[in-house]
Amino acid sequence: MTDTLTAPPARTQVTPRHLTGPEGLDQLLIARLLERAAQFEGGGADADRLGRRLLATIFYEPSTRTRLSFEAAMHRLGGQVLSAESAGKTSSAAKGESLEDAIRVVSAYADAIVLRHPEVGSAARAARVAEVPVISAGDGPGHHPTQALLDLYTIKKELGRLDHLRVGLAGDLRNGRTARSLAVLLTRFAGNELVLIAPPGLRMGEDVRRSVGAQLRVQETPDLAEVAPTLDVLYQTRIQAERFESEAEYERYRGIYQVGPELMRRLPEHAILMHPLPRAGEIDPQVDADPRAAYFRQARNGLWVRMAVLDWAMAG
Amino acid sequence: MTDTLTAPPARTQVTPRHLTGPEGLDQLLIARLLERAAQFEGGGADADRLGRRLLATIFYEPSTRTRLSFEAAMHRLGGQVLSAESAGKTSSAAKGESLEDAIRVVSAYADAIVLRHPEVGSAARAARVAEVPVISAGDGPGHHPTQALLDLYTIKKELGRLDHLRVGLAGDLRNGRTARSLAVLLTRFAGNELVLIAPPGLRMGEDVRRSVGAQLRVQETPDLAEVAPTLDVLYQTRIQAERFESEAEYERYRGIYQVGPELMRRLPEHAILMHPLPRAGEIDPQVDADPRAAYFRQARNGLWVRMAVLDWAMAG
Amino acid sequence: MTDTLTAPPARTQVTPRHLTGPEGLDQLLIARLLERAAQFEGGGADADRLGRRLLATIFYEPSTRTRLSFEAAMHRLGGQVLSAESAGKTSSAAKGESLEDAIRVVSAYADAIVLRHPEVGSAARAARVAEVPVISAGDGPGHHPTQALLDLYTIKKELGRLDHLRVGLAGDLRNGRTARSLAVLLTRFAGNELVLIAPPGLRMGEDVRRSVGAQLRVQETPDLAEVAPTLDVLYQTRIQAERFESEAEYERYRGIYQVGPELMRRLPEHAILMHPLPRAGEIDPQVDADPRAAYFRQARNGLWVRMAVLDWAMAG
Repeated sequence: MTDTLTAPPARTQVTPRHLTGPEGLDQLLIARLLERAAQFEGGGADADRLGRRLLATIFYEPSTRTRLSFEAAMHRLGGQVLSAESAGKTSSAAKGESLEDAIRVVSAYADAIVLRHPEVGSAARAARVAEVPVISAGDGPGHHPTQALLDLYTIKKELGRLDHLRVGLAGDLRNGRTARSLAVLLTRFAGNELVLIAPPGLRMGEDVRRSVGAQLRVQETPDLAEVAPTLDVLYQTRIQAERFESEAEYERYRGIYQVGPELMRRLPEHAILMHPLPRAGEIDPQVDADPRAAYFRQARNGLWVRMAVLDWAMAG
Repeated sequence: MTDTLTAPPARTQVTPRHLTGPEGLDQLLIARLLERAAQFEGGGADADRLGRRLLATIFYEPSTRTRLSFEAAMHRLGGQVLSAESAGKTSSAAKGESLEDAIRVVSAYADAIVLRHPEVGSAARAARVAEVPVISAGDGPGHHPTQALLDLYTIKKELGRLDHLRVGLAGDLRNGRTARSLAVLLTRFAGNELVLIAPPGLRMGEDVRRSVGAQLRVQETPDLAEVAPTLDVLYQTRIQAERFESEAEYERYRGIYQVGPELMRRLPEHAILMHPLPRAGEIDPQVDADPRAAYFRQARNGLWVRMAVLDWAMAG
Repeated sequence: MTDTLTAPPARTQVTPRHLTGPEGLDQLLIARLLERAAQFEGGGADADRLGRRLLATIFYEPSTRTRLSFEAAMHRLGGQVLSAESAGKTSSAAKGESLEDAIRVVSAYADAIVLRHPEVGSAARAARVAEVPVISAGDGPGHHPTQALLDLYTIKKELGRLDHLRVGLAGDLRNGRTARSLAVLLTRFAGNELVLIAPPGLRMGEDVRRSVGAQLRVQETPDLAEVAPTLDVLYQTRIQAERFESEAEYERYRGIYQVGPELMRRLPEHAILMHPLPRAGEIDPQVDADPRAAYFRQARNGLWVRMAVLDWAMAG
């Protein structure tokens, strides 16, 4: 042990490496992160790369799964964690503090911050005042960049490529940030086609539809059964009860697009079924045994991809 | 540091070592776990046995005490912890996710799972889908196997043996899972007698009464004062307000069996008074100074016993 | 790794080193702690001093900021943490357990306890039954000794001395424990003057006013603007909504003493503006860029000071 270990590692980077949305994720960085993730999965990287580093996971919205996967990734890299799993209720937010103030203070304690927050753009706001890297773990119905990265990792691993794929995104595309982020990242690779499968009231936001539509072929349809046979990837999502304004509005939509044995018969043999989880009825548990059901493998991939992101942000 | 440390430790066991109830705890395993616990208490074991391992503590019901004792045990063994102290409220459970799905995902991140859940049988359900050991920290009014183990450890340490004892279990035996589990484990040793001390409405469930009754002498009585002089162990429990259907029903029972100086005068000199804690009036704090009051020593024993259980589950 | 590491470090101190209020903090101990904090800030101390030690942070009231700063301090010293961020709701407290019982049990698991609790005197009560050091992280409207220490550290660092200062404490002095603790600690150094700036309904409690008034010059005024030009330190505090009995009473006071550019023009060039944070409108964010705005530097200092306190309590 040398004396220098007492102080937090020197912060020599002029600008911390933030990951607040899909913008900064160009093809080169994606390739680098996925390759690193594969190395971690294979066991071929130094386990103590983030020894003595501290990660703060600051969650203003509940998400045990995402929080634990980041924290597991940090521990697997030899680091330690400060955890705030209900920052919105039990912290200074309840006393009227701004997100910016909270981030300024936490960035004095930790070497990186993973932030989940209910407002679109919150991660970018945090990054503007933080002295350490800010990694978004979801900004309301905005984006969820590390989820999109692990989705890409899963597609690459399951299907062998990230280009010339026909990917169907189904469900609550208005509120589902994982579908939004994945749509954007699919534009980074050649020849992909996107099928947006949603009822009119849950269409993907115009911001993403327009920017994505300028770069790859996009089809929109409310009819999942019809397009299923044409897909390489069916990416099913949850109807996000917590984002609807009333119970009645939610009830209108829950139950659409339930994937069961019948739908699976329409999906090609080579295709895969993905879901960011948690599911609440959109996929029948009977489907779990189907080899094309990739969602639990997908969840497991989150560990390696988040290790790669933390490693990139902190160890460089 | 070798490269292999990056990956979670290899999972070579075909079936993980679950501990979901008293069933698997035969006399041999109990003896082994208690002996190991004694080694940990004595300081005579390698402190880094679980270095680089990750334990997830997933609590769907509040229990700071039990959670912290498992987490302390993991840290004392050199391991790290992922902690979800209100999984029922802040996690995907609120979004309609099944326990099975949650466990599948967490078992991809951690090397073992400690689960507290309000439903009877939940730990066994979790074990069926988990790829890593599942240790129950209580399944509603079902069982609490590590508590029963630390109770045995305490009895052994205080009285020198686990057989030919007359043990009185008092209080809310209908809802008290610790009393249920301890009753079952006492059948593993010869010559024990059980006195079930409860009002008619709070009798221990027939499932346990029948299986235990087939193996050792069981007496039932509502009269604590009368049987107190005959006991080697008085195991007092809390009336579990949160398990009653109405406040009125709870009020009928709270206050029965308060143990104070007078009752202690009826208890033999060599006997001990135990309580799984927390207490809420069932034992007068005046009793704390009595050398027979073993409950704080009992709580401390939880650390060694949980170290032994985690060590058995993960290091083998 | 030697075998002895398995057991918690031997507890050879007859009386643990508690820090439950400002009483024990005499000039000598303050000097020692601030010097140690400066060593930690400078990186000149062994980072592994608390290796293998466990800190329990038990918070019965929400305070993400304070909890994380203690936990960061523990990790920076090489130690590990057991964290209970809502002990009042999710723990045995909800089942009617006394604070004393909870502390007795936790002190069997951890090597020190950081306690936040809503009742005045709770930390001292905890210390009476704990077998390990108890560090108060605030006892309701009582005291907050580590905050006062980091305030002193900030003043020393910013102004070069701790004596012959004119310090204005502004805002909710009735409920603000940080102001109360700082007032007491300022009496440890020669020649300080205190200006208590509060409306009549929020005056500092008579207990502190009397004891402090016996040792240094105290002026009381409701007029912040008038006294601002005379101050070396303006210590602004939050109106503590959660301590008022009604919303209406809170509304009477919120908004007094808002510090903005105009007030800053009245503050001397050499003076500093402090705030224990979180703020909720008492300081205009426009002020943040003023070099005299010391509150974010102050928050950062909390890390070094809490490292010093934990080191003193556990490593001696």
